[in-house]
Amino acid sequence: MPSYKAPLRDTRFLLNEVLDFPSHYQNLINGGEATPDIVDAILEECAKLCEDVIAPLYHSGDEEGCHLQDGEVRTPKGFKEAYAAYIAGGWQGLSHPVEYGGQGLPMSLGALKQEMLGTANWPFAMYPGLSLGAMNTIMQHGNEEQKNTFLPPLTEGRWAGTMCLTEPQCGTDLGQVKTRADVNADGSYALTGTKIFISSGEHDLTENIVHIVLARLPDAPKGTRGISLFIVPKFLANPDGSLGARNGVTCGALEKKMGIKASSTCVMNFDAATGYLIGPPHKGLECMFTFMNSARIGTAIQGVATAELAYQGALAYARERRSMRSLSGTKEPQQVADSLMHHGDVRRMLLTQKAIAEGGRTLVYLATQYADKMIEGMLVNDQTQYAHWDDKLGFLTPILKGCLTELGLESANLGMQVFGGHGYIKEHGMEQIARDARIATLYEGTTGIQALDLLGRKVLLMTQGKAVRDFTRELNTLAWSLLKEEPQMRGKALTLLRLSAQWNLLTLRIALRARKQRDLVSTASHDFLMYAGYVALAWSWLLQERTARQKLRAGGQDSPEFYRAKIATSDFYFQRLLPRAKGHASAMLKPIGSIMDLPGEHFAFE
Amino acid sequence: MPSYKAPLRDTRFLLNEVLDFPSHYQNLINGGEATPDIVDAILEECAKLCEDVIAPLYHSGDEEGCHLQDGEVRTPKGFKEAYAAYIAGGWQGLSHPVEYGGQGLPMSLGALKQEMLGTANWPFAMYPGLSLGAMNTIMQHGNEEQKNTFLPPLTEGRWAGTMCLTEPQCGTDLGQVKTRADVNADGSYALTGTKIFISSGEHDLTENIVHIVLARLPDAPKGTRGISLFIVPKFLANPDGSLGARNGVTCGALEKKMGIKASSTCVMNFDAATGYLIGPPHKGLECMFTFMNSARIGTAIQGVATAELAYQGALAYARERRSMRSLSGTKEPQQVADSLMHHGDVRRMLLTQKAIAEGGRTLVYLATQYADKMIEGMLVNDQTQYAHWDDKLGFLTPILKGCLTELGLESANLGMQVFGGHGYIKEHGMEQIARDARIATLYEGTTGIQALDLLGRKVLLMTQGKAVRDFTRELNTLAWSLLKEEPQMRGKALTLLRLSAQWNLLTLRIALRARKQRDLVSTASHDFLMYAGYVALAWSWLLQERTARQKLRAGGQDSPEFYRAKIATSDFYFQRLLPRAKGHASAMLKPIGSIMDLPGEHFAFE
Repeated sequence: MPSYKAPLRDTRFLLNEVLDFPSHYQNLINGGEATPDIVDAILEECAKLCEDVIAPLYHSGDEEGCHLQDGEVRTPKGFKEAYAAYIAGGWQGLSHPVEYGGQGLPMSLGALKQEMLGTANWPFAMYPGLSLGAMNTIMQHGNEEQKNTFLPPLTEGRWAGTMCLTEPQCGTDLGQVKTRADVNADGSYALTGTKIFISSGEHDLTENIVHIVLARLPDAPKGTRGISLFIVPKFLANPDGSLGARNGVTCGALEKKMGIKASSTCVMNFDAATGYLIGPPHKGLECMFTFMNSARIGTAIQGVATAELAYQGALAYARERRSMRSLSGTKEPQQVADSLMHHGDVRRMLLTQKAIAEGGRTLVYLATQYADKMIEGMLVNDQTQYAHWDDKLGFLTPILKGCLTELGLESANLGMQVFGGHGYIKEHGMEQIARDARIATLYEGTTGIQALDLLGRKVLLMTQGKAVRDFTRELNTLAWSLLKEEPQMRGKALTLLRLSAQWNLLTLRIALRARKQRDLVSTASHDFLMYAGYVALAWSWLLQERTARQKLRAGGQDSPEFYRAKIATSDFYFQRLLPRAKGHASAMLKPIGSIMDLPGEHFAFE
Repeated sequence: MPSYKAPLRDTRFLLNEVLDFPSHYQNLINGGEATPDIVDAILEECAKLCEDVIAPLYHSGDEEGCHLQDGEVRTPKGFKEAYAAYIAGGWQGLSHPVEYGGQGLPMSLGALKQEMLGTANWPFAMYPGLSLGAMNTIMQHGNEEQKNTFLPPLTEGRWAGTMCLTEPQCGTDLGQVKTRADVNADGSYALTGTKIFISSGEHDLTENIVHIVLARLPDAPKGTRGISLFIVPKFLANPDGSLGARNGVTCGALEKKMGIKASSTCVMNFDAATGYLIGPPHKGLECMFTFMNSARIGTAIQGVATAELAYQGALAYARERRSMRSLSGTKEPQQVADSLMHHGDVRRMLLTQKAIAEGGRTLVYLATQYADKMIEGMLVNDQTQYAHWDDKLGFLTPILKGCLTELGLESANLGMQVFGGHGYIKEHGMEQIARDARIATLYEGTTGIQALDLLGRKVLLMTQGKAVRDFTRELNTLAWSLLKEEPQMRGKALTLLRLSAQWNLLTLRIALRARKQRDLVSTASHDFLMYAGYVALAWSWLLQERTARQKLRAGGQDSPEFYRAKIATSDFYFQRLLPRAKGHASAMLKPIGSIMDLPGEHFAFE
C-alpha cells in the first residue's frame, strides 16, 4: 500500500529556487501576504493534513465507494470527518476573496493545496475541487446578490458546488444540451432535464450543494449559442442565509465506474428545479469557457499527482523487493538476491515516473504563475494584462491537461509494472492508482479534445501559429542563455533550439496544408499535442537543471545530492523520453488519406 | 456493452490467403486431417460457441467474480454450463494426441480456438488455457503411467490443470522457491509450501484439478539448479481412473484483483500433499522452460484478443454516437451531429486498434506455424528440425508476448477513449477490457522480463546477434521481392530494408558495448523489445498488403473492399505507428549512466 509523503523538498526547489515565487508574490497585487514564511507554513500544514488525515482514506474509500439510499449519497467512512478537518483549517477559501471569508491568497497557492490533496487522495479532493469551479463561476459571472448569498458558505466549505454540463446525448458537443429553463413568475427559472456524470452531485459532506447548470431558455437559438448558465441550489437559501425549501434537483443514480469510486458521480434529475440565471442569457458556454482553463489545469494536476503517488509506491517496493542479480555482478552478496533498484529496466521505469512527476510539476507551477497574473489583470481591471496571461495560460493548458494526464496514466501503469504480478492485486494499492488515473484523459475534455483545442483553436484559428512562436521564443531565450552560461548543458540547449525550430516549421506546414485539407487539423492533432508535451517537459527539465547546476556551483548546500539527482533525471529525460517526440514529429504531417479515406463501412467485415 | 463477433473474414484471409495454412497442413505430419473444409467447419463451430455461449458471460462474470467458501471456489453463474458445452464439443483435446482422447490436430488450430475463446471471454478462457500448460508438461516430461493416468481426463476436459510456480517471495526469480518435497515411503513425495497467483487453482468446473508444482527435493542444490517438477492432483487417482482420496492441497484464499475477476487466482497451500516427480530431479526449471514459449504465445494472444474486442466495441459506438461536425464540413446534415466516424482523431484511434489487432493476429498465426513445425520435429524425433523451429519461435515469442500485450493494453485504453466519459462507466463494458488486459504485461513474465529474454538471452547470449540476422533476412527477402513485384509498395519495402539494416547495426553496437558494460543489456532492453515489435508488425503488414494487392489484381473477388481496407490499414501503420520505432532506436543506445548512475538512496528526498 503506497503511503503518501508530500514531496516538499521538490516543491520548495521549484517555488523558491527555479521559479522564484517569492518575487512573483511580492510583485503580485494579492501576493503581499504570501511571504516565504507563510508559504512554508502553508506547505507544512497542508502536508500534515494530507499525510495524516486524507491519505489514509484513499484505499478504504475505494473499497467502500459511495452509496445512494433514498436520494441521499453516503460517502465512505471517514470522509465526513476529513472534510470537516479540511474546512476547519480554512483550506477551501485559501485563494478566495477575504470579503467572502477567504484568505485572499494567490490562486497558485490554492493549486499547491489541490496538488497535495489530490496526490494524497484524488477522489476525496474532487469534492472541494468541483466546488472551486462553482465558486469561480459565481465570482466572475454572478451578480452582487448571488455572490453574497452563495460565496460565503462556499468559501467556508459549509456548502459545496458542482458543474452540471453533460447530458446523456452529449458531453463534448454541448450544443446538443436539452435541459430546459422556463421563466417563473418571480423572475427565477424552472429547470427540467437530466444531467449525467455530475461529480459530487450529491453527498453528505456539506449541508447544501450549489449546482451550476447549463440549460436552454425558451427563446434560445439552436446549438451552442442558445445555452445559458444557472445556479440551482439543493436547498433554496433564505435571505438570512439559512436553508430554505428542498429544491427539485435530485440524484437519480450513482454511476458504477472503473475508479475514483469514493467520488460520487451522479445522474442528476432537474424537475422544475428553481434556478437563477447567471451571466447573460444564451452566453452560458462562453461563461463556462472562462473557467475551462483553470478546470483543465486542475485535471493536469491529476497527471502529476498520479505520477507522484505511483512513483512513491514503486520506489518503496523496488528498494525492498529482491529478485535476481544485477547484470553487472552481485550487488548485495549477503542477501538472497539484489534489490530491484539494481536492475536497469526497473530504474528506467522509476526514472520515467520521476521525470514525469517532477517535470509535470514544474509546468503546472509555471501555469499557476500565469494564472496569478491573469487574475491580477482581472482584479486591477487591466484588460491587456489579463489577455496576455490568459493567452499564455490558454496555450499551455491543453498541453498540460492532454499530455500530463496521458503520462500520468503511463506512470501509474509503470508503478504496477514495478510490482510485477503484485501490482495487479488490490491490497498493494497500485492498481487503484491506475484505475483512478484512467478518468483523467476522459473528463474535462478528452485528450482528443485537448489536441483539437491546442492545434485547431489556440494555434491555428486564434493565432495563426503565433502561439507557438511566442512559446518557443521563451524556449530559445533559455537555450541561448544556457549556451552562454552552462557549457555542460550545451548539447541539451542545442536540442531545445532544434526542437523550437522544428515545431514552428511543423506548425507552418500544417497551417498551409490545412487551408485546403481541413481534416489535417484533426489527423495531426494528437501527434502535435504529444510533441508539444515532450518539448514543454524538455523545457521544464532545462529550467530545473540550470538551477541545480547554479546551486552546486554556489556550494554550501546541505543536500548537493538533491541537485545531482535533478541533473541525472534531466539527462534521463533528454536521452530516454524526449526521443519519442521524433515519432510524433514524423507522424503528424503524413497524408490525411491514411486516416480519412477508408469508408466507415469498411472498417470491419464479417 | 461490446458484443463479440468472431472476425472470421480476417482469420480466413490470414490462414488461406496470406500464410497458406492449407499447404502448411498438407506438409505437416499431423496436418492431414486439417483440410480446408475441416478447418472451416472448426472455425464456424468455434465461433458459434464463443459468440452465443461464452461471450455473453463476459460482463456478468466480472460483476459476480469468484467466491471461496469452505475451501471450494464457485465460478460465476453460467460458467459451469458453458464449460460443459465446451468440453462436450471436444474442444479441449483439439490439438492433443488421439491416443489420449484428443483430435490430434496441429497446435495452430488449438491456438485459433484459444484466440476466439479468449476474445469472447478471456477470464473464462483461462480455465481451459491453464490446463493446456499442464497437459503439455505431462506429455513431454511424464512417464507412461503418468501420461496414462492424467492425460485422458485432462484431454477430455473432465479434469483441469494448473501451473504452480510463484511463491510470496519470488515470481520471476524462481531460484528462491522454498516449497519442499520430502520422499514418501512409496516413492511419491510429500509437498509442503505456499504458492500464490495460481490461476484456476481451485474451481467448480471439473471433478479434479491437476497441479504442476515447482518444489525442492531434500538434497537439492541452492538456486535454480535445485528445483524439481511434481504432479499434485487435488484428488488422488485410483488405478481404475476413478477419484481417490482428497489430497493435501487446498485453496487458502482468492486474490482480489483489478480484473480477470471471473478467473480464480488462488493462494494454494500444500500440506504434505502427495506429489509425483515429473522429469529428472533438479531439472524442473528446464522442463518448465520447454513450455514457456507456448505459454507466452498464449499470453501474446491476449494482446490480440484485447485489441480485437476493444476495437469491435469502439467501432460500434463510433458509428452510432453523434458529436460535433466534421472539420471538412457537415457529413450528415439530416442528423443533429455527425457520427464519430467522421472525426480524424477518432479514426486514428480506431485504425490504431485495427492495425494492432490484425497485425498482431498475423504474427501470432505465423508463430503457431513455427510451433506446428517444432512439434513435428518432436513427433518425428528430428532434433535439427525441432531446434530450428524452436529457435525461430523462441525469438518471436518475447517480441509477441512483450509487445502485443503492451499494444493490446493501448488498444483497450483507446477503446475507452473513443467512448469518452462513457468508457469509464462499467455498464458500457469498455473499462473491463482495459482492466482485464492489464494483467497481460505482468504474468508469464513481465514486459521487462520479455525484453531481457529477447536481448540478453535470445539475441546476445545464445546467438551473438544471429537471431536478428536470421529474422531480418526474412524481412529482406520479402522486401526485395516486393521491390520487384509490387511497385506501389516500393516506399514501404525500402523502409523495411532500412529497418533491417538499422536493427542489425543497433544489435552489433549493443553487443560490442555490452561486453564492457553489462548493464547496457538491461538499460537497452525495453527499447530494443518495442523496436523489434514495431518492425515485426511492419513485416506483418507488408505480408498482408502484398496478398491484398495480388487478390485485387487477380479480380473476381466478392469483396474487393476488404482488400482495399487492408491496404489502407497498412498505409496507416507505416505512416502513423511505425514512426514510434525511431524514438526507441534513438533511446536504446544512450549511455547507461543516465539510468544506472543515480544512487538508489537519491531517488527521493524529504
